[in-house]
Amino acid sequence: MSGKGAKDIEALIELMARLPGLGPRSARRAVLHLIKKRGLLLLPLAEAMQKVGTTARECLNCGNIGTGDVCDICADDARANGQICVVEDVADLWAMERARVFKGRYHVLGGVLSALDAVGPEELRIPRLIDRVSTETVNEVILALPATIEGQTTAHYIAERLPQTRVTSLAQGVPVGGELDYLDDGTITAALNARKTF
Amino acid sequence: MSGKGAKDIEALIELMARLPGLGPRSARRAVLHLIKKRGLLLLPLAEAMQKVGTTARECLNCGNIGTGDVCDICADDARANGQICVVEDVADLWAMERARVFKGRYHVLGGVLSALDAVGPEELRIPRLIDRVSTETVNEVILALPATIEGQTTAHYIAERLPQTRVTSLAQGVPVGGELDYLDDGTITAALNARKTF
Repeated sequence: MSGKGAKDIEALIELMARLPGLGPRSARRAVLHLIKKRGLLLLPLAEAMQKVGTTARECLNCGNIGTGDVCDICADDARANGQICVVEDVADLWAMERARVFKGRYHVLGGVLSALDAVGPEELRIPRLIDRVSTETVNEVILALPATIEGQTTAHYIAERLPQTRVTSLAQGVPVGGELDYLDDGTITAALNARKTF
Repeated sequence: MSGKGAKDIEALIELMARLPGLGPRSARRAVLHLIKKRGLLLLPLAEAMQKVGTTARECLNCGNIGTGDVCDICADDARANGQICVVEDVADLWAMERARVFKGRYHVLGGVLSALDAVGPEELRIPRLIDRVSTETVNEVILALPATIEGQTTAHYIAERLPQTRVTSLAQGVPVGGELDYLDDGTITAALNARKTF
């Protein structure tokens, strides 16, 4: 790409092109930009990636990404308000947190049930959720799953397995087929405030 | 973004969002992807960036990016065919190299003349080009500059300063595979004016 040599630069371009949202052309553009901003961007980025790469891990309790065995939210006693919000993945947890309306803890399933993709409860963090509800003091499980068929199937599956617990789900207001990560904060807030017993 | 903690992850997202082509949302998506592909992508990327950040530098001769004082093309005697191709930036040099049609060496200006942005010849690598033409054995200087007003102003400026040298520029016309219907008037005019006997 950059001639006969500069193998390091070509290797970097190839890796960058594997990022979601970047293709070969934008990866080349990004790498040139990085080289121009070596001190301000390239080296700090290398360091930040190294750091995250060595420290980031899944929370053993909820599946969130953090830097210890237990994530910051699970480690924060102030978040133990008896509510667990169940989300599909970490991006959805981040979207909830940006809305700043939910004060409890989370449970990240790591996907939704899908017969087509052979994703069963054991592939997800569903057994761990059942376990948490029976061992922690949980007043309410809030299902913040996608408004898709798979998401709602997953919601039903979880609700059936928690007959002793108040299970709610985000109010309608979430567009059908929409994904949490793409919603604005206002919609998320409205949906959470208008939640109904599942 | 990711809650109260995980500062390292937030720092990485902020840096990623500064890349051209990525905004805050796609940066979050990219970082989650990176964390999921820690061993395959995140750590190799950190290493590749570190390597490029410490070794990449501008070629003292032509302005290309390489890993030594002189880039691979300038270091390759087989490329000394008496032709110098003048480009605006390294991305253009890479585009020329991908076409595998030019066998000479390059000169990367680092921009084009612009009265509006106060970019004069001294801000670009133009004096160094004049210097190269007078010291190296140069038969032809090929101007591969953008077909914009600034690009063409720069081309004229350079040609005037090299009265003893054959100076050519890339032909203008219909792109290969291009449909007339999608071309701008300027390109059609240029292609008509430069028409050849069939």
